[in-house]
Amino acid sequence: MKSLAVDAMGGDFGVEVTVPAAISVLNEMSNVHIVLVGDSDEIHYQLKKTSFSKANQLKVQHTSEVVEMNDKPIEALKKKKDSSMQVALRMVESGEVQACISAGNTGALMATAYLVLKTFEGVGRPAIISKIPTLRNRVYFTDLGANVECEGRSLFQFGIMGSTYVKYMEKLAKPKVALLNVGTEQIKGVSAVKIANDLFEKSELEYIGYVEGDDILAPKMDIDVIVCDGFVGNIALKTSEGVSKFIQHSLKEEFQKSVLRKLSGILALPALKGLKARVDPRVFNGAALVGLKGTVIKSHGSADAVAFQYAIKKAFVEIENNIPAKIRQEIDVAGGEPA
Amino acid sequence: MKSLAVDAMGGDFGVEVTVPAAISVLNEMSNVHIVLVGDSDEIHYQLKKTSFSKANQLKVQHTSEVVEMNDKPIEALKKKKDSSMQVALRMVESGEVQACISAGNTGALMATAYLVLKTFEGVGRPAIISKIPTLRNRVYFTDLGANVECEGRSLFQFGIMGSTYVKYMEKLAKPKVALLNVGTEQIKGVSAVKIANDLFEKSELEYIGYVEGDDILAPKMDIDVIVCDGFVGNIALKTSEGVSKFIQHSLKEEFQKSVLRKLSGILALPALKGLKARVDPRVFNGAALVGLKGTVIKSHGSADAVAFQYAIKKAFVEIENNIPAKIRQEIDVAGGEPA
Repeated sequence: MKSLAVDAMGGDFGVEVTVPAAISVLNEMSNVHIVLVGDSDEIHYQLKKTSFSKANQLKVQHTSEVVEMNDKPIEALKKKKDSSMQVALRMVESGEVQACISAGNTGALMATAYLVLKTFEGVGRPAIISKIPTLRNRVYFTDLGANVECEGRSLFQFGIMGSTYVKYMEKLAKPKVALLNVGTEQIKGVSAVKIANDLFEKSELEYIGYVEGDDILAPKMDIDVIVCDGFVGNIALKTSEGVSKFIQHSLKEEFQKSVLRKLSGILALPALKGLKARVDPRVFNGAALVGLKGTVIKSHGSADAVAFQYAIKKAFVEIENNIPAKIRQEIDVAGGEPA
Repeated sequence: MKSLAVDAMGGDFGVEVTVPAAISVLNEMSNVHIVLVGDSDEIHYQLKKTSFSKANQLKVQHTSEVVEMNDKPIEALKKKKDSSMQVALRMVESGEVQACISAGNTGALMATAYLVLKTFEGVGRPAIISKIPTLRNRVYFTDLGANVECEGRSLFQFGIMGSTYVKYMEKLAKPKVALLNVGTEQIKGVSAVKIANDLFEKSELEYIGYVEGDDILAPKMDIDVIVCDGFVGNIALKTSEGVSKFIQHSLKEEFQKSVLRKLSGILALPALKGLKARVDPRVFNGAALVGLKGTVIKSHGSADAVAFQYAIKKAFVEIENNIPAKIRQEIDVAGGEPA
């Protein structure tokens, strides 16, 4: 039976989101098991509010501490050994569960996962990989904030890990990997990007070369994986969120400008809702930490129960595909050197 | 009389865009003079198509070469000495005109401007600064692609130059300057960003600290200038273009899904057009190259005549405000060390 641990206290809403989400998943899926890790009283209080009968698929693991959003990663790691996050990760390490999912402090999750689970030999740094919708289909984007100053070798490893992830999660024989860069000739990118480009070209990966910022959301060709360092990845992703907010807000204002426009806005609601559904970030919730000797999923901190359910289900798919073992194999073959 | 040189051959459409745009500006503005630099036959052929009487405000300067979009910057610079771009820049250097505007190859323009005009003492690298619309108002974003690997000192200088630019172009006493960074605690950014942050904090600038990617288009506070290196700036700007394309295309598809939706789309046209006008990149066309001993404006390569007019008018505003001299002053006071 597939089993995972949920850091029940993590995220902006803690047990109010994590507990009902876990119960919904259990009500829907059989042959899976969830351990809710956190304050036992709080968890049981939430459990009483849900309708749930499959007690054999659920366990509550009490912990006394919580990693706060503003805790420094290293302090969360060292001083909160009985935090829901750390205990959930230790359950992966001990083999009691096969994955852990948390909506908590990203830095603390990265640091604790790195120390508790370790990376595979040859993997310098774990990376965060996330699926986002695009004009053609979808793309897996990595790294998303874990590593800000990267050597070319690290970027190359992100590509190997991203390619492996997509290969098994989407059953694609040869995922197309691209490297994010700036376009104009004179500034073909920083040295790490150039080094990574050379490594990709010599590799067995289906490498399609450089792409530019507009190829993330509106690609001119099919791309499965886009690689960049965590600084650029974070800025690109957050810039996208800003543009999306900007357009949605501006559109709302335009539909408020007159009585006629308000009316036209009401009639346009189905199309506008269709647009919203396309970019609904909840469906894409759940970013994978890859390169670790265990499956760890990071949910968005502000996820609601629906979004958190998507993240839990994604974790079960990762367990099914045994992603960490696959990544170890590919790293051994293609990129097994300390980064 | 304010006078500027137009690289008439630059951009995707060359004289078909640059000549009618220049004529429209002359028809609208008095007391300004424009030199059209490029193939004399081509320019005169276009001039014949326009209605124009102010011959004393116009001059045609013949050149025999054209910098192509795929020319390497250094080759454009060394081998095409009679290119419209290089001759236009030399006219700024000689003082015959006070500014140059080109829609040509960005790399070649940067390299040639750098060599022909030089930067002010103490300015390591010129930067590209551009105005973009935001949810609150607008923001000036720099650097946009000129410099990919930047020291902290260079980022600081971009801030000084950006602040000075906005101060005089918008008559703002104390422009608010922010530094683009990633958000989470553990990854407070690369070392250059941290060094720049220290320099900003010690400076006389109105420095408001770090902002994140979503603050570019949907800022949570008033910001006048956002500083980052050219790699990140290029990726952020192009990512924004991609998101915008993605949303516009998706919206169009949603309005095509049924007869009823098509009808609602027709009724919604005024609001949709209102949205389009808000984000019309033509209005924002014309990025300034700052740090040089002369005024240079880069138009988007795909600019149409309307967009190119905006860029020409921006150049006249820069001339009026004598931006290069102002930047030299502020660099002397605040940041006068080699970067």
